Amino acid sequence: MINYYGNPVTRLIEEFAKLPGVGQKSAQRMAFYILNAPADKAQSLADAITDAKERAKYCEKCYNLTDAEVCYICANGSRDAATIMIVESPQDMAAYEKTREYDGVYHVLHGAISPMDGVGPNELRIKELLLRLGDDAAPVKEIIVATNPNVEGEATAMYLSKLLKPLGVKVTRIAHGVPVGGDLEYVDSITLLRALQWRREL
Amino acid sequence: MINYYGNPVTRLIEEFAKLPGVGQKSAQRMAFYILNAPADKAQSLADAITDAKERAKYCEKCYNLTDAEVCYICANGSRDAATIMIVESPQDMAAYEKTREYDGVYHVLHGAISPMDGVGPNELRIKELLLRLGDDAAPVKEIIVATNPNVEGEATAMYLSKLLKPLGVKVTRIAHGVPVGGDLEYVDSITLLRALQWRREL
Repeated sequence: MINYYGNPVTRLIEEFAKLPGVGQKSAQRMAFYILNAPADKAQSLADAITDAKERAKYCEKCYNLTDAEVCYICANGSRDAATIMIVESPQDMAAYEKTREYDGVYHVLHGAISPMDGVGPNELRIKELLLRLGDDAAPVKEIIVATNPNVEGEATAMYLSKLLKPLGVKVTRIAHGVPVGGDLEYVDSITLLRALQWRREL
Repeated sequence: MINYYGNPVTRLIEEFAKLPGVGQKSAQRMAFYILNAPADKAQSLADAITDAKERAKYCEKCYNLTDAEVCYICANGSRDAATIMIVESPQDMAAYEKTREYDGVYHVLHGAISPMDGVGPNELRIKELLLRLGDDAAPVKEIIVATNPNVEGEATAMYLSKLLKPLGVKVTRIAHGVPVGGDLEYVDSITLLRALQWRREL
């Protein structure tokens, strides 16, 4: 990149361009936004980055992100600690929280089994799940596997099912089927087939 | 925004979402990229922001961005200092630099006249341009007005032309016309009309 604007600005553009989904043009727009912003506004972003890296940590129980020892969900006494939903990421947890209907707790794996990417069960928070099942005072009644509906997520779900069922705990998987809204015409064949296989009596 | 991931992460997402062109989803992706990046990579972005705010300043001659007293273009003795191209922003300067054909120097106005936005000639670097025309040892032969081809840019061009012509300096305006490549069919009427009015003999 040619150094049109001097080193500090060029470096800032290059740093922004490393962010996911940010190209050279967007990075330049962001850098000029920072240059034109009041100094405290700009510093606020810089501080937020440093602060997040320093203070964000994993919940000791469920491995969601938090700045406390346990996250706000695990700390909430009115949640049903006997139901654990297993998700791949904090973002997936947030997606289920947005439904405002689930009142159990979570366990965040931080990934899915993917031999191609060198991710096996040991790279995920599965040991921690087993420890948690052993530790918890209240016995767990149900584990809902909500890994992604793709190859890696399904493989992880199979693995967890084989691992957890012998422990005598009920293991369920979120349903496959047609999404709510939209048109059958545009739904792929595999999803249509699953929706048929998983049909329920009305 | 619900605080799913604890304060530091939520704050980081909010800070990213303030950047231009960054929505909630992109901001979340950026924040998780930072959280998963090595600490020094993340700190590098934070430092670049602070550093750019502290060290980026305007060239004393042309008001381009630089970290030195004069920018790399003004400092380059092989550029033709007798030809000054007036642009609205450092980005416009960079756009002309990318042509690799222009070998004069620039003057960056940092905006265009826009009464609606409360921007008059006094808000732009026009006084500095006049001082520069008076100061420079070498007399200026031509001033090329390359403000944007929109209402504000045209108004600024008109203003500059009236201001500079009495000083006996040649003032030119970059041409309007059809862009290179593409199809006349898709060019707007005003541009087609200008291309006709500004036609040249072959």
